[in-house]
Amino acid sequence: MDHLYEKTTKTKDIYKGKIIDLHLEEVELPNGKMSSREVVKHPGAVAIIPITETGELVLVRQYRKALDKVIIEIPAGKLEPGEDPLESAKRELEEETGYKSEKLDFIVSFYTSPGFANELIYMYVTDTLIKGVSHTDEDEFLDVLEVSLDEALEMVKDQRIHDAKTAYAIQYLQLRELGKA
Amino acid sequence: MDHLYEKTTKTKDIYKGKIIDLHLEEVELPNGKMSSREVVKHPGAVAIIPITETGELVLVRQYRKALDKVIIEIPAGKLEPGEDPLESAKRELEEETGYKSEKLDFIVSFYTSPGFANELIYMYVTDTLIKGVSHTDEDEFLDVLEVSLDEALEMVKDQRIHDAKTAYAIQYLQLRELGKA
Repeated sequence: MDHLYEKTTKTKDIYKGKIIDLHLEEVELPNGKMSSREVVKHPGAVAIIPITETGELVLVRQYRKALDKVIIEIPAGKLEPGEDPLESAKRELEEETGYKSEKLDFIVSFYTSPGFANELIYMYVTDTLIKGVSHTDEDEFLDVLEVSLDEALEMVKDQRIHDAKTAYAIQYLQLRELGKA
Repeated sequence: MDHLYEKTTKTKDIYKGKIIDLHLEEVELPNGKMSSREVVKHPGAVAIIPITETGELVLVRQYRKALDKVIIEIPAGKLEPGEDPLESAKRELEEETGYKSEKLDFIVSFYTSPGFANELIYMYVTDTLIKGVSHTDEDEFLDVLEVSLDEALEMVKDQRIHDAKTAYAIQYLQLRELGKA
């Protein structure tokens, strides 16, 4: 057992929702004292870096209630129960942008907010987009835009892009252009 | 008003916690239909990329109850009420690693999980570390480690580093070394 481990002595289910659940866990700390931890359970998600034939990055503008504003992100969405992340990425790419791709390359996965949530994002990149028709979920509304890497870098600097996975994606594209990704 | 805006018609407070609150918001979608959104409110956080005199990245190993495992991250912590992010970054750096710095440079801020939470992270880098003594919060236990950039890149590849802000930080260091950050 890792010396940093915290043993849960009691779990209280606070909320079971459409997308997230909230638990309150009573834990025994490494020094034997008691504390509590608030834990958000999330099904996990995928995000896609879609690059057009002319080298532009495909982004989506979407209203996010948690922020009470419209923000710009790479296409992304949560995993359906039991869904393979690669299949989920293909589905979300097409639903949100209208682009299909049969060749999505896995880059990385990471936890977005390990301090309070278990959301894990699987990230993919694709340079082989086939134009189709978008068809978002019934409670999902968004605009699609396509920008050059230089524009995307400007958008991170002036916070028009203000989202962690999208900032990561743009760094990835910078490194790829330099032959370092 | 942005055409993607969702008007909240009712907010239900589900939980008020130590770190996060959970609300359920009934919204009117852009097409006039009703839906609901689960929203986690978080005070915001800071993260620091601390580089030692010999060019090593300072990381912390910490048990995260949300993941039920120990993970490796750059030093980070949540904002105290009313706290300036720069002061918070200095405080967290010293608390978690024992290193002090008077020169932290702001890099970027971003939302970590805009689909369900409003956590905003402010990220700083510092190359001027002064060795001191760590003194974590009473419910916080962690190990400090120092790794080269090459080791850090390996750790992202094999998922010993599996955290979004830390993966971002390592890309930032790669780009900085190439004169591109």
